Amino acid sequence: MRVIPANQYQAKRSVDSGTKEQQDAVKAILADVKERGDAALREYTERFDRVALQDFRVSEAEFAEASALVSPEVKQALVEAAANIRDFHERQVRQSWFSTKESGTILGQIIRPLKRAGLYVPGGTAAYPSSVLMNAIPAKIAGVPEVVITTPPGADGKVNPAILVAAQIAGVTDIYKVGGAQAIAALTYGTEQIKAVDKIVGPGNIFVALAKREVFGLVSIDMVAGPSEIAVLADDTANPRYVAADLLSQAEHDPMSAAVLVTTSTALADAVALEVERQLVDLPRKSIAEASIQNHGAIILVENLDEGFAVINAIAPEHLEIMIADPFEHLGKVENAGAIFLGPYSSEPVGDYFAGSNHVIPTNGTARFSSPLSVDDFIKKSSVVSYSKQDLLANGHKIVALAEQEGLAAHGRAISERLRDFKREE
Amino acid sequence: MRVIPANQYQAKRSVDSGTKEQQDAVKAILADVKERGDAALREYTERFDRVALQDFRVSEAEFAEASALVSPEVKQALVEAAANIRDFHERQVRQSWFSTKESGTILGQIIRPLKRAGLYVPGGTAAYPSSVLMNAIPAKIAGVPEVVITTPPGADGKVNPAILVAAQIAGVTDIYKVGGAQAIAALTYGTEQIKAVDKIVGPGNIFVALAKREVFGLVSIDMVAGPSEIAVLADDTANPRYVAADLLSQAEHDPMSAAVLVTTSTALADAVALEVERQLVDLPRKSIAEASIQNHGAIILVENLDEGFAVINAIAPEHLEIMIADPFEHLGKVENAGAIFLGPYSSEPVGDYFAGSNHVIPTNGTARFSSPLSVDDFIKKSSVVSYSKQDLLANGHKIVALAEQEGLAAHGRAISERLRDFKREE
Repeated sequence: MRVIPANQYQAKRSVDSGTKEQQDAVKAILADVKERGDAALREYTERFDRVALQDFRVSEAEFAEASALVSPEVKQALVEAAANIRDFHERQVRQSWFSTKESGTILGQIIRPLKRAGLYVPGGTAAYPSSVLMNAIPAKIAGVPEVVITTPPGADGKVNPAILVAAQIAGVTDIYKVGGAQAIAALTYGTEQIKAVDKIVGPGNIFVALAKREVFGLVSIDMVAGPSEIAVLADDTANPRYVAADLLSQAEHDPMSAAVLVTTSTALADAVALEVERQLVDLPRKSIAEASIQNHGAIILVENLDEGFAVINAIAPEHLEIMIADPFEHLGKVENAGAIFLGPYSSEPVGDYFAGSNHVIPTNGTARFSSPLSVDDFIKKSSVVSYSKQDLLANGHKIVALAEQEGLAAHGRAISERLRDFKREE
Repeated sequence: MRVIPANQYQAKRSVDSGTKEQQDAVKAILADVKERGDAALREYTERFDRVALQDFRVSEAEFAEASALVSPEVKQALVEAAANIRDFHERQVRQSWFSTKESGTILGQIIRPLKRAGLYVPGGTAAYPSSVLMNAIPAKIAGVPEVVITTPPGADGKVNPAILVAAQIAGVTDIYKVGGAQAIAALTYGTEQIKAVDKIVGPGNIFVALAKREVFGLVSIDMVAGPSEIAVLADDTANPRYVAADLLSQAEHDPMSAAVLVTTSTALADAVALEVERQLVDLPRKSIAEASIQNHGAIILVENLDEGFAVINAIAPEHLEIMIADPFEHLGKVENAGAIFLGPYSSEPVGDYFAGSNHVIPTNGTARFSSPLSVDDFIKKSSVVSYSKQDLLANGHKIVALAEQEGLAAHGRAISERLRDFKREE
């Protein structure tokens, strides 16, 4: 890993907008599915997934078959992870509130779950049951009555069994074997077999990302995810083997993933660089991790922890590990980070799989303004105004003055119409 | 107004994507401002706003001049409105939380304000000081340390004085005289005089809307606003003059605005239709309101209130007025509505200007999944995981199992590296 001083590091910031051809292909697929529904879904599924399907919905028999294919150990781990995720996300649930005034006026904010949420789950080698839990459970906890999943089928017309097991554990039984931009189209516009949803979440390839971007506004979407990132802030108390292993756990995701160590210790910097080389040797996903480390990995030397936190806040990493002597003492210095892992045992995979916090976290520097997926993403708020006669009598003329100042006479008259009646009653 | 049965009404749903020429113009402006900064801003301001500016920032002298131009009555109304908006939005403020477990593990969620927010304020005849309050105050309450405004200058190089007065009342003193797509570019990329922001909010014309859509992901944006809407659900207890006046207060915004009455009463339907005609006669914005009523207005007759709520929920209106005998009794039947106004005195302008709830509300049916602007729009969350040795010892092997199931060996090894040390210590 290259070692560089703080002032020479520049976090990359980019949004993959796809090629013109990809954009046009996505627009055509969206329009076609909107127009022709399931018939179009069947054609695209045959073309892209190489399988002919009549019914898209996963059957009871397929769930049973899947359950038999997943080891009891993995099942048990998924069940426990789901319980932890539920526990964490239940703490995010918010209440509606009302404020009642002596004047008779009542103001409030009602919080309700969305009616129907769609979760896109990638297929193939990137089929992650943990992501099913992370996306579906917050929706269920929010109270969304209908949570559905779309996922591309394999060439055998089936879905990765661990995906089905995780879906069942999360309480999702409505699963449709459709992938790509055509799945986003089905979730947006609805087809004969798949009802339209209010929100689409979940990661996908460039076609899925472009399709989500395109339907944004017709339906709610989660963030446009970029490559995964980790930044580790460490001092000389950190264990270089742990630091290196954690950096590599991020690097193995994608050649575009970024793994960065920010440290006050040149000794640690050297040791981590060595450890990364040593641990890379026999990694199954060595070529991916190596490309990531070479192109987007860096060890940044800083003078002191304050400079370290400044570097971290400029990066706004998706994952931040703080491996220093007193991590809690410095927690308040973190301004921008999606998820913060403190101390030697909070290895990022603990959060990816098990602790209970969400692993869908803002990437690409967007932790400056975005948040991990949460129950908040599956609710909507309505304001409530019940204005009393007494308050309208006292304040009506002010409202009229403001409306007239803005040249919106009909707004003023809606109030005057009432005020006139009050006068008459006197 | 046309009177139609419930099954014949179809709410319009559309997103204005602009013409190809508009899209290309916006992309060119964004790229140019990114490249050339203030020099580009000056050129566009000269071309579109017909004024040559050196400094974009509004000066102290301009603020003082503006203050002298706004009537004490309007100023006082703005001050009181701001106090009510503060009071409402302070109730939305959320706390960070931590959950400490006996095992030593601590999980939590930290809530922090964004660092810098940019508010776009339209110029010309659509310069609304109330919108300045509605957009800026939630950001200030959230604790955003830097809130700035961009707004197009008039041909005299000045900003509408009421905008400046409202900005001062809201506590915003950083105002830049730049409008259009070039303002969105400046807020996104930063220029010599204008720093980049984390989030851009506020309405604008099609160029502003397209520019916001284009930079989505690099910076956070609020919803892409469509034309304003009102739906009134009323029974025979409603006053037809009030209903008509409230429908017209919405209709005067824009020929594309929709004003819809849903009622169980044919007598009310007839009376409201007559009243709308009567009240239209001498409205200053008659031609706009008339076009809105003709093209997008409707009176929908329903058999009973339950059918009425079904129609309302399908429309998912931005504003919903409920003028029936027992509005609170039926409040729980509203599934989709941005803001709900109950009873005869809760005329929509009460909420637009004064009660304290926000008037930036999801349009175009997006109340199905979106919410009024709130303090939540100006904060970000970070998850916190401090995992204990005891918990890693107990659960590490489960995490390894899940990682291996997903084929992510380096994730598993990050955990095994620690587990091996624990074994050695035994």
